[in-house]
Amino acid sequence: MKSLTPESTFRTRLDRARAEMARTGVDALILSLGHDLPYLTGYLAMPLERLTVLVVPRDGEASLIIPRLEAPRVTEMPTVFSIAPWNETDDPVALAHKLLGAARTIAVGDQMWSRFLVDLLALRPSSTYVRSVVVMEALRSRKDVDEIAALVAAGAAADRVAAQLQAGDIALVGRTEAEVSADISARLIAEGHQKVNFAIVAAGENAASPHHDAGDRVIRFGEIVLCDFGGSMNGYCSDITRCVHLGEVPTDIADAYAVLFEAQAAGVAAGTVGTMCEGVDAASRAVIDAAGYGEWFVHRTGHGIGMEAHEDPYMVKGNSTPIAAGHAYSVEPGIYIPGKWGMRLEDIVVATENGPQPVNHTNHHLVVLDR
Amino acid sequence: MKSLTPESTFRTRLDRARAEMARTGVDALILSLGHDLPYLTGYLAMPLERLTVLVVPRDGEASLIIPRLEAPRVTEMPTVFSIAPWNETDDPVALAHKLLGAARTIAVGDQMWSRFLVDLLALRPSSTYVRSVVVMEALRSRKDVDEIAALVAAGAAADRVAAQLQAGDIALVGRTEAEVSADISARLIAEGHQKVNFAIVAAGENAASPHHDAGDRVIRFGEIVLCDFGGSMNGYCSDITRCVHLGEVPTDIADAYAVLFEAQAAGVAAGTVGTMCEGVDAASRAVIDAAGYGEWFVHRTGHGIGMEAHEDPYMVKGNSTPIAAGHAYSVEPGIYIPGKWGMRLEDIVVATENGPQPVNHTNHHLVVLDR
Repeated sequence: MKSLTPESTFRTRLDRARAEMARTGVDALILSLGHDLPYLTGYLAMPLERLTVLVVPRDGEASLIIPRLEAPRVTEMPTVFSIAPWNETDDPVALAHKLLGAARTIAVGDQMWSRFLVDLLALRPSSTYVRSVVVMEALRSRKDVDEIAALVAAGAAADRVAAQLQAGDIALVGRTEAEVSADISARLIAEGHQKVNFAIVAAGENAASPHHDAGDRVIRFGEIVLCDFGGSMNGYCSDITRCVHLGEVPTDIADAYAVLFEAQAAGVAAGTVGTMCEGVDAASRAVIDAAGYGEWFVHRTGHGIGMEAHEDPYMVKGNSTPIAAGHAYSVEPGIYIPGKWGMRLEDIVVATENGPQPVNHTNHHLVVLDR
Repeated sequence: MKSLTPESTFRTRLDRARAEMARTGVDALILSLGHDLPYLTGYLAMPLERLTVLVVPRDGEASLIIPRLEAPRVTEMPTVFSIAPWNETDDPVALAHKLLGAARTIAVGDQMWSRFLVDLLALRPSSTYVRSVVVMEALRSRKDVDEIAALVAAGAAADRVAAQLQAGDIALVGRTEAEVSADISARLIAEGHQKVNFAIVAAGENAASPHHDAGDRVIRFGEIVLCDFGGSMNGYCSDITRCVHLGEVPTDIADAYAVLFEAQAAGVAAGTVGTMCEGVDAASRAVIDAAGYGEWFVHRTGHGIGMEAHEDPYMVKGNSTPIAAGHAYSVEPGIYIPGKWGMRLEDIVVATENGPQPVNHTNHHLVVLDR
């Protein structure tokens, strides 16, 4: 897909990346898989054994090393980077090594395959390697107005699918989790997403596994159904979780959901500019702990979101990064009773100088459905 | 998906991996994303920022480090590995470091995200890191009878879709490449694949880009259409390329296709046990070079295939690995005239003591269609 972002934006981003490199003592940046590369160039590398990598020396021209047969996929931007195609019998790691020149401290993109770093280590054993987030987090985590607009649009599309779920438009009883997952996926596309990243559908006791794979389990009347889904729309991600209950809600589930509802709202409200990221986690967790469900809230409260479904900053104990205007992240506490049921409630939130602004607005209650 | 492979097979594979470690001087193996991990454990790691990694000390018990919230996804096999779950505020790389003990030479899975290797480097600066293929290629590249049966079944399913294309069951003229790609993908699923890995559809001048993304380009009468598709069926991959021509074939395309047909057959025939992998490439390339199209054959002739769509061994100049019984790989020469047209012809082949045995049998000629 051709990037919608103008060349001038990429030029500005690369300038900012170089400034961050200077500030953090990084001599060169190497970016392959993942979204640091498209953030700087508009191009997403193919996840294959042929290496694609952007080499950005702090004081030299940026070069995109790419297999010659994939070069036609790239939109050239001479004022941002040049293209260095390699042939099938060339060694692309040796080419990167050459372009890195005398660089001592090299920041490596998070998702680059280790095989290429292993090969680079053999060529440059005395370089120091750090993670690219050292350079890129400051850029990517603070979304600009166009990025926020894209997140809001993707969130609104996901909201519409969640509303269809709550309205009973998506049949549940008697279908498998996998069928409902496919139905939700098709609706995300119909509402404007280009790509579905995940569509977790977990019924009854399966909802107690936070990363459950939707499977052949048939959904039955009388149980809770957890739906956590999202995708990419014009390059930016959505992510939402809502639970519905088929028929009358048992007391234990109703009691826990009331706590979850309050915990999620507390996490959202805590996200003021200057608060440490772990403060959002603490706010949600305090509510769940106080109600006695603490041992069943087994994951962090949230993750950053943008071009990637999960990215920095993370809302987790130990992350003292202060929330800044333009940070976008999920707030998604959960309660999971193994073998019985699970529940999670999730919105995406954008931090602003005027306080946290949720992107998602679909009904936050446990909606009761009859089919 | 629950693995269909019995625990005894995994135990045998792990024993063989340890023997390879001893032979190659590797003290420990660490495997994360990619298919070395499911080959040894039946479990495919999630491609997320939370680390999953199997640590195999040569002389100690294997441990699967996994986020606690993903642990329910794993089928435990106490005679093969134990599970070491980590909590949200634990440091999984520090846990891996501890389990690696005094290991000096560490073999790292190809697709593990570099962020984890960067963190490990900081903890173990004086270890030596090598690629896991040093240990795993000898195991994974020689398929056993069950694996070959799975490749044959996946290939037969892909053949049926290719035959539907050649029979004119898949309308082309007036549809976009993306629509035809979606149609082919649905047919791969209908024929038994669980997952589509890619479905390249490239019409006319787009066929000159070997890794073209199927897009909004409408297919017209009078042009060549290249279709290269494959997926995963019961854990093993298919991959096939056929071209069709809409209406009468111009002389330049007919002439080139005759060369391509001969080059592909020569590559298949060259794959006898003991021949170096580069010999397959040389055999196809010699035919194309002799006919004067050499500069337009811009990629290697093939790649290994198994649990992954692309894996060792590669059929490329410089690979002197001798072909062994049980090797499975693609033979897929191509001719690409930029701005005009492109063509590729691809089968999967299994090497046996009785010579190369193609998995794919669909008509190898340039079939002419009228719609």
